[in-house]
Amino acid sequence: MSKAEEFRAHRERMNQRILDQGTLVTRRFMNLDTKCYEAGALDAKTKEMLGLAASLVLRCDDCIAYHVLRALEEGVTRREMVEVFDVGLVVGGSITVPHIRRAHELLDETAPEEAS
Amino acid sequence: MSKAEEFRAHRERMNQRILDQGTLVTRRFMNLDTKCYEAGALDAKTKEMLGLAASLVLRCDDCIAYHVLRALEEGVTRREMVEVFDVGLVVGGSITVPHIRRAHELLDETAPEEAS
Amino acid sequence: MSKAEEFRAHRERMNQRILDQGTLVTRRFMNLDTKCYEAGALDAKTKEMLGLAASLVLRCDDCIAYHVLRALEEGVTRREMVEVFDVGLVVGGSITVPHIRRAHELLDETAPEEAS
Amino acid sequence: MSKAEEFRAHRERMNQRILDQGTLVTRRFMNLDTKCYEAGALDAKTKEMLGLAASLVLRCDDCIAYHVLRALEEGVTRREMVEVFDVGLVVGGSITVPHIRRAHELLDETAPEEAS
Amino acid sequence: MSKAEEFRAHRERMNQRILDQGTLVTRRFMNLDTKCYEAGALDAKTKEMLGLAASLVLRCDDCIAYHVLRALEEGVTRREMVEVFDVGLVVGGSITVPHIRRAHELLDETAPEEAS
Amino acid sequence: MSKAEEFRAHRERMNQRILDQGTLVTRRFMNLDTKCYEAGALDAKTKEMLGLAASLVLRCDDCIAYHVLRALEEGVTRREMVEVFDVGLVVGGSITVPHIRRAHELLDETAPEEAS
Repeated sequence: MSKAEEFRAHRERMNQRILDQGTLVTRRFMNLDTKCYEAGALDAKTKEMLGLAASLVLRCDDCIAYHVLRALEEGVTRREMVEVFDVGLVVGGSITVPHIRRAHELLDETAPEEAS
Repeated sequence: MSKAEEFRAHRERMNQRILDQGTLVTRRFMNLDTKCYEAGALDAKTKEMLGLAASLVLRCDDCIAYHVLRALEEGVTRREMVEVFDVGLVVGGSITVPHIRRAHELLDETAPEEAS
Repeated sequence: MSKAEEFRAHRERMNQRILDQGTLVTRRFMNLDTKCYEAGALDAKTKEMLGLAASLVLRCDDCIAYHVLRALEEGVTRREMVEVFDVGLVVGGSITVPHIRRAHELLDETAPEEAS
Repeated sequence: MSKAEEFRAHRERMNQRILDQGTLVTRRFMNLDTKCYEAGALDAKTKEMLGLAASLVLRCDDCIAYHVLRALEEGVTRREMVEVFDVGLVVGGSITVPHIRRAHELLDETAPEEAS
Repeated sequence: MSKAEEFRAHRERMNQRILDQGTLVTRRFMNLDTKCYEAGALDAKTKEMLGLAASLVLRCDDCIAYHVLRALEEGVTRREMVEVFDVGLVVGGSITVPHIRRAHELLDETAPEEAS
Repeated sequence: MSKAEEFRAHRERMNQRILDQGTLVTRRFMNLDTKCYEAGALDAKTKEMLGLAASLVLRCDDCIAYHVLRALEEGVTRREMVEVFDVGLVVGGSITVPHIRRAHELLDETAPEEAS
């Protein structure tokens, strides 16, 4: 299993556990977390990039990994991805660099043909 | 002078002061801060929304105000703006709500015709 | 109007504005933000103190003010409030002190008889 | 050795190292870090939940693990724990979800009989 | 009264209030907050600059103002101050810029002769 | 290979990858990230300690590890290092303790003779 697959399997299993053990508030929040990335006035591709920028400046590796993988599915190219990283890097500072290193590692493994 | 104009005048005056007093590092950083929102693989509108989402989850009122005003200039509608807020709200939590309150105040003053 | 009343009036007015302009996601989130403080396995008093501790370490003055006022309504004493501040102070560090200064100002205005 | 025991052994060993190498300021801070969770106007159970909520929104896995284990010792049930997570989740947003996943993993290992 | 004097008077008055209303934990923490900037292996000037860098990346205006004023007392020049800002700016990103604007305003008012 | 060497090799390899895949903005930022620690009005030793304090309160293990290793090269003693940690600990709170634990582990491996 690739690192990306492992990450997704663990994420899915434990999100299910959160739902099983959770309250109505927990379940409604988890539902919103899916809903807010669905196409509306903005398309899903843009929303995934927004989620990625937000995750990057808040420096959450798991959230970054999730949105990088979802962004790839929505057709975000490596060059576009890098420009999302650039906004995060300038807004959030050098403290985001270790996360960008790990994001490139994931991209190199998952979508190597996308590298420029 | 409206609140938006006051904010911009102060921002410009003090950014000039930062450049005047700053080092080469300061000046280069300030330059990057402009450059990273210029159209590239992603257009300027998308980049402003990324900057807005990042500013919202980091909870910086001045940065939010700046990107809201720039986003309006790039043609972001109120409905699209609200969906950027939604991503910030779900990713960043209720701690972002006071900032969304102030962002709506700025929008109501600056682009009231845009309200749905 | 006292500072506490002003704060609450502004909060209510702008939260209504967020709901008016918002999407289904916005409205559901705002609803959860109320729901998660309702009594369940934990009583409302404990939950308000949890919200206060979380707001303090995230350093959001508006959120702190809101939970301080709600905590007073739930019967939290000044001494208990101070112990919530203590946990926030030790977990979050001296960076929380300016917020604790403002929280005491609000308490002195709102519930002066509570001061020890 | 279970994951919880390993975590505690490492924590204790390295805290001792911090004390050995530290200054008077270091030692006094570490002492306060213990003291602020002792029963006072609020009981130890409530204080551990406050520490857990603060740790969750600041997204520190080691701090979350420590307070989850201490909360179990103070008699916090799984259901109560989940309501502490709920406050953290709503205040701190979806960025806290990966930490809640890991907290449930620790709970499943440490107190499986507590699961609802 | 200048802005700097006003800030200091309010800070002192409310810190006293925190001590009056606080617990033993509160008082010991406030004491540590003074103690950790006293000369030791590092001199007081260096420690004030460390406190300033930390306050800048955590984006707390009151803490920045306090350390800017203390740094001036310890003989930190405007040029040195700017280099502390530079480290904060690069580590913490453009989100720190509004705080650097306000820090320069305070410096222009308090130590105008120091400007290069 | 020691943990410190492994960390540095990975860091170098992935920073190169960021530069290869990056834009002009990316490359300029990475360049600034080096430049801002070079001696100017403040010497390199002081700047590394500023970077360390900033990294500690922002709680980034990779950034802390990098600045601890660079600080050792600039001649920062263990005792001075501990006083930098103290400022971070008091400003940033107990949430920084797990990072200080890991920093001492790195120091014990890299510069054991430095321990007091």
